[in-house]
Amino acid sequence: MTVSETCLLCKEHAAAIAYASEAQQNQMLGLAAEALCGNAGFLIRENAADVDACTRGEQFRDRLLLNEARIAGIAEGLRQLVHLPCPVGEIIGRHTAENGLSIEQVRVPFGVVGIIYEARPNVTADAIGLCIKSGNAVVLRGSGDAYRSNAAIVRVIKDALRAGGFDPEFIQLIEDRSHESAREFMRQKGVLDVLIPRGGANLIRTTLENAAVPVIETGTGNCHIYVEKTADAGMAKKILINAKTQRTSVCNACESLVIDRAALPMLNELASALTERGVVLVGDEEAQRACPSVLPAKEEDYFTEYLSLKLSVRTVEGVEEAIAWINAHSTRHSEAIVTSDARAAERFLREVDSACVYVNASTRFTDGFEFGFGAEMGISTQKLHARGPMGLRELTTYKYLIRGNGQIRR
Amino acid sequence: MTVSETCLLCKEHAAAIAYASEAQQNQMLGLAAEALCGNAGFLIRENAADVDACTRGEQFRDRLLLNEARIAGIAEGLRQLVHLPCPVGEIIGRHTAENGLSIEQVRVPFGVVGIIYEARPNVTADAIGLCIKSGNAVVLRGSGDAYRSNAAIVRVIKDALRAGGFDPEFIQLIEDRSHESAREFMRQKGVLDVLIPRGGANLIRTTLENAAVPVIETGTGNCHIYVEKTADAGMAKKILINAKTQRTSVCNACESLVIDRAALPMLNELASALTERGVVLVGDEEAQRACPSVLPAKEEDYFTEYLSLKLSVRTVEGVEEAIAWINAHSTRHSEAIVTSDARAAERFLREVDSACVYVNASTRFTDGFEFGFGAEMGISTQKLHARGPMGLRELTTYKYLIRGNGQIRR
Repeated sequence: MTVSETCLLCKEHAAAIAYASEAQQNQMLGLAAEALCGNAGFLIRENAADVDACTRGEQFRDRLLLNEARIAGIAEGLRQLVHLPCPVGEIIGRHTAENGLSIEQVRVPFGVVGIIYEARPNVTADAIGLCIKSGNAVVLRGSGDAYRSNAAIVRVIKDALRAGGFDPEFIQLIEDRSHESAREFMRQKGVLDVLIPRGGANLIRTTLENAAVPVIETGTGNCHIYVEKTADAGMAKKILINAKTQRTSVCNACESLVIDRAALPMLNELASALTERGVVLVGDEEAQRACPSVLPAKEEDYFTEYLSLKLSVRTVEGVEEAIAWINAHSTRHSEAIVTSDARAAERFLREVDSACVYVNASTRFTDGFEFGFGAEMGISTQKLHARGPMGLRELTTYKYLIRGNGQIRR
Repeated sequence: MTVSETCLLCKEHAAAIAYASEAQQNQMLGLAAEALCGNAGFLIRENAADVDACTRGEQFRDRLLLNEARIAGIAEGLRQLVHLPCPVGEIIGRHTAENGLSIEQVRVPFGVVGIIYEARPNVTADAIGLCIKSGNAVVLRGSGDAYRSNAAIVRVIKDALRAGGFDPEFIQLIEDRSHESAREFMRQKGVLDVLIPRGGANLIRTTLENAAVPVIETGTGNCHIYVEKTADAGMAKKILINAKTQRTSVCNACESLVIDRAALPMLNELASALTERGVVLVGDEEAQRACPSVLPAKEEDYFTEYLSLKLSVRTVEGVEEAIAWINAHSTRHSEAIVTSDARAAERFLREVDSACVYVNASTRFTDGFEFGFGAEMGISTQKLHARGPMGLRELTTYKYLIRGNGQIRR
């Protein structure tokens, strides 16, 4: 099938999930979870073909890999969705106009959600689960490197839904693995209601530049921690170590330390705690002078999401300069201030233009589960529709239902 | 200034409005309204130059024209915004996590809003007013045909703000009137937080195809009225006449009548009421047979937003076929059913995939003022962010403010 045929087929079957009851959604999630576990052997064999064919680095192959434990984890994720409330049908607002018209604003599914993503096959099942529980049909376009794994997951889930008496065609995987097909996918205006790219900076940039359908920009996080001059050194160290090293490959990890000139005496202690954990620091001349382990930074370092054990350091004079620096270099994801000064904290909260702004806490908390959503489709770094972690509610829109008895406009 | 310089200048001054108090916003609106009235002579002279240079049709020139009454109307619109509550600062959600982190979701302005629009100079002042009251900086890109009028309005408002002690540079008008500049405007990623096109179908399509920033699609309305077989003929006639003829040039006007085969006997009466008011009807063969005044329709008629005294007619067999027809041909703006059957009504409400779905009322009510928003930036026909009429709240986003005391992720 062509990309366009696949998307149209999905749209034609969108009603199968849009009008499913919550009990039916939950039944589908249970069937999908059970089928993934029951077909782990098949999934692992298909995945092995992808892994064997993969000529990219070890880290990439690791992200691609499926094994019994990972499949069990994916299935568990689907089962957890059963316990979350379906957002569809919520009455957001309701009023009766003077002329007697009843105007109701009701939450509804988007309709058809497109997901374009990279080599992690778990995204395939996650996205299907989130779309089932939010009433959305879904068209998936994964990486060519993971095609057999993705196709196997989709087949297992669709077979299970069909066997359970459901129409599974609201789930579609793009078969064409060419670059042209990705571009075609981004231009399915009138068919895809929203397109969500999940992956690295390149994928997201390409999607924004080429899409002719509404896009939710996700993921890249050049996150900053600002150590203000009144910061508690111990707290700064604890937060910085957590945000930089607890997990380096994630978008909410810290990539840049912004430090007050007056706080530079703390830098040696912060830096040695980081270098002990393998972190390489690059910074400006003042930071280098204050701390010999800081290497020279290039301009581009301050725009880089390393996703590895590297950290840029920038010296500033006070909260105003820190905010200006962060707003000029961040990706509007997550930034934190460490401070004992309540006024500095409130100014930072107000003026930093990012989805999640922290006082005295690690940026690693930017996450749908940590925020209590119970699930996550990604983290939006744009301001339209959703900002920060996106859960089930962020996968819906609304419509107005207006009931009258013959009203006309004067 | 180049487009990019203008947009950057606007962004640099965004704080001047983002952190203005509501009292300051209201003061600015009052100053702007007063200045427009006080400088009506200047505005009319500058506008006359645009109107004189305009070589397009009478309807176009009428939309372009400013006179004392229209200027007073524009000023009155600004004054009305004073009485609307500013949406910024609203706490949308708040909870404390088990680890003690306080997570607050707070409504904030977008930042920099781009507006690209056609020849109506009133949009210039409307957009400035809405952005002031929602805390947004605004970059305006009007039509070349209205350049002197727009520049005069912007100058009068900015001079008044400056004289009142405010920094007015959060308001910017693109000076470059070339087509390339429009395209460049649509690609100001990292500067424009959202771009809203206001105008005809061509402008909106071009914007969607070229933009690299988030867009809110607005306006085009191929709106349907479905006369179901149990419809009260008198009510159907009243609603149809209102929706088609009360004002033909607006997006919420009806463009297509969908009628049940069993309701065809009513068609003569409906058609003669419409033809009396100058409406030309085109329809399928069944409609032509049922009513001699119905001319043959072409396939493209059913996709056309006429914005004039013309109406397409399509015969269907029951509510399911009507819904499928409407979903395949509408622009997802506003559709109505006229019926006495509650089940047909509820099915129509549920399954018609449009921003506003009506039972027994005119589609003409899709409007920010009619919906009680007190203002309107346009009507969204996409599903991302806002759907249907957009008021002040729809010109905002949110951010998460997270306050801790040293929390790190485990």
